[in-house]
Amino acid sequence: MSHTTMMIDPGLPTGQFTDVISSHRDHVGLVKFGWGTALVTRDLDRKIAVLREAGIGFYFGGTLFEWYLVQGRLDDYLTLVDRTGATHIEVSNGTIPLDQPGKAGWVRRMTRYRPVLAEVGYKDAERSATLSPADWAGAILEDLDAGAELVITETRESGRSGMARPDGHLRDDVLDAVLARVDADRLLFEAPTKELQVDLIRAIGVDVNLGNIAAADLVAVETLRRGLRGDTLLQMTLPRTVSFA
Amino acid sequence: MSHTTMMIDPGLPTGQFTDVISSHRDHVGLVKFGWGTALVTRDLDRKIAVLREAGIGFYFGGTLFEWYLVQGRLDDYLTLVDRTGATHIEVSNGTIPLDQPGKAGWVRRMTRYRPVLAEVGYKDAERSATLSPADWAGAILEDLDAGAELVITETRESGRSGMARPDGHLRDDVLDAVLARVDADRLLFEAPTKELQVDLIRAIGVDVNLGNIAAADLVAVETLRRGLRGDTLLQMTLPRTVSFA
Amino acid sequence: MSHTTMMIDPGLPTGQFTDVISSHRDHVGLVKFGWGTALVTRDLDRKIAVLREAGIGFYFGGTLFEWYLVQGRLDDYLTLVDRTGATHIEVSNGTIPLDQPGKAGWVRRMTRYRPVLAEVGYKDAERSATLSPADWAGAILEDLDAGAELVITETRESGRSGMARPDGHLRDDVLDAVLARVDADRLLFEAPTKELQVDLIRAIGVDVNLGNIAAADLVAVETLRRGLRGDTLLQMTLPRTVSFA
Repeated sequence: MSHTTMMIDPGLPTGQFTDVISSHRDHVGLVKFGWGTALVTRDLDRKIAVLREAGIGFYFGGTLFEWYLVQGRLDDYLTLVDRTGATHIEVSNGTIPLDQPGKAGWVRRMTRYRPVLAEVGYKDAERSATLSPADWAGAILEDLDAGAELVITETRESGRSGMARPDGHLRDDVLDAVLARVDADRLLFEAPTKELQVDLIRAIGVDVNLGNIAAADLVAVETLRRGLRGDTLLQMTLPRTVSFA
Repeated sequence: MSHTTMMIDPGLPTGQFTDVISSHRDHVGLVKFGWGTALVTRDLDRKIAVLREAGIGFYFGGTLFEWYLVQGRLDDYLTLVDRTGATHIEVSNGTIPLDQPGKAGWVRRMTRYRPVLAEVGYKDAERSATLSPADWAGAILEDLDAGAELVITETRESGRSGMARPDGHLRDDVLDAVLARVDADRLLFEAPTKELQVDLIRAIGVDVNLGNIAAADLVAVETLRRGLRGDTLLQMTLPRTVSFA
Repeated sequence: MSHTTMMIDPGLPTGQFTDVISSHRDHVGLVKFGWGTALVTRDLDRKIAVLREAGIGFYFGGTLFEWYLVQGRLDDYLTLVDRTGATHIEVSNGTIPLDQPGKAGWVRRMTRYRPVLAEVGYKDAERSATLSPADWAGAILEDLDAGAELVITETRESGRSGMARPDGHLRDDVLDAVLARVDADRLLFEAPTKELQVDLIRAIGVDVNLGNIAAADLVAVETLRRGLRGDTLLQMTLPRTVSFA
């Protein structure tokens, strides 16, 4: 089984973006141009050329989909997807008043244009907290049933809401409920902090799909996967350990 | 009304600085070389050439003014301003024992050399907390009366003191007292965190002047201004919203 | 007395690494390729060439030593050190179950190959908290006696464990116990946060050896050393102060 690391671009300057992809392309599976940043990125076409050259897929944050949808301008969104060659479409309802069945309907419709990444969870911490473990599992199954290729679990950039607790660690109750009904390889976990990256690698294993990884953390995440950092070293190496004292 | 976004340079390497200005110059109105970093920047002249080429004004952090003043070396400071072509002078009393009327006197004197940005608030959180809302408004009016082009409100890099509460959000009581007596376009709010950027855009609007914005956050701030991020999306787009469910 | 600032590379892309060293080489004494990042760095040889050209020493994080040691592959580690020309070896027991006398034994053995930087303290906050001030001082003396050139005090990247308290400030009790028995110039303090950098410069002085400094903070640390930032301005300049009001 192979895994995906999704890097978020929150508006990197073009030179830095190129440098990151050139140096770290082995550790990036997918790039998301975060929320609506694509619309204020001067060199978007150059960034996309860099990704195409490296063979890395990309898409726009779900918030951009919502921004077009709430204004009744979805045609413009599809034109953007088409013109840029985005490889995926993210469908979410993190911000706008669109309920879960309504979102699943959009997942189904968008699969006509691109493989869909559906997101579950809300940007607002209090609203996300109203979702029970069963709600999470149900929403994920509904989105997969509607044709989503992967379902993304929301945690925001702070890593302290959605699938995460206010203390920054994973909501085990949600994770258990979800994994009881969904294969981990159909999930892409937003894990913007080391706490969440470590929790997920320990809970699910080296091949867990991780998203919202900052460019600055790509190498660090790869070392966590391989047991090359203190947090996961013993877990990954002890089976092979020999006497050393 | 047009707005200013002031980027702080805390000591970026020269290549990155050039890359940021090249990619994001549409989103930067003014650059501050933070505190005394200018004196330990090997390529200061190259950075300045990049700004001049892009038509972006710049100045040195108020702490550098205070550093020269407290040593009785203000002539050396003015020589630096002159040699580098800094477009503004920041006058502050965030660190040294200089009282408000004394600072206003320096504002008045410095206007002979450059347009002055005057800062209100102290670096020390406890000292800043002694300022009442009326003190903030009074100090701002005194600095404007002394000839300041803009008055900057201090929050430090943590965004948790000065105009900000320890929880990271804006001090509404101070803001209300200030806006009752001062036009928002005479103010430049230090807003180093997303919490403060969102609070200020919601309270004052898309054209609020924001300062101490990190290079890495320039695009993000622009998306907040335009309603392209979850935090401000509904506020900016709902008036135009049509049915979408 | 001259001081060392050790920069940690957590996996910078090659262009940025080159840019940082080019711009800030006056402010870097030593570079650590953090934990096991060296093994997932595509352009390690180019980074090393940049350091060699700038005359800056480098080594691999102690976790990489532990990773090889726990697998019984220390020969491979020494081959890596030899092939890359690393100038130092860090010996630590921050993660693996190796006790202090055992670690001191490895310090002694590794001095045959390179000058050794020995680390005291554990990655796990609770385990580090079990060390008394006398334990810290004793371990440091034992490592120096085993031949370490410098002893590094652990604080992790959060700056909230090891030599640091959970509130992010320095453990004065540990510092006092250590400085009563060890010269400060035999110590390299991990100080990844501004709080710790300020505390250490105030406690020990401008020439304190600081480690785990991020590339983005090199200039800021230098300004703290020189009194060019609010936090240390009055301490460094007041002796020379003249009247200025």
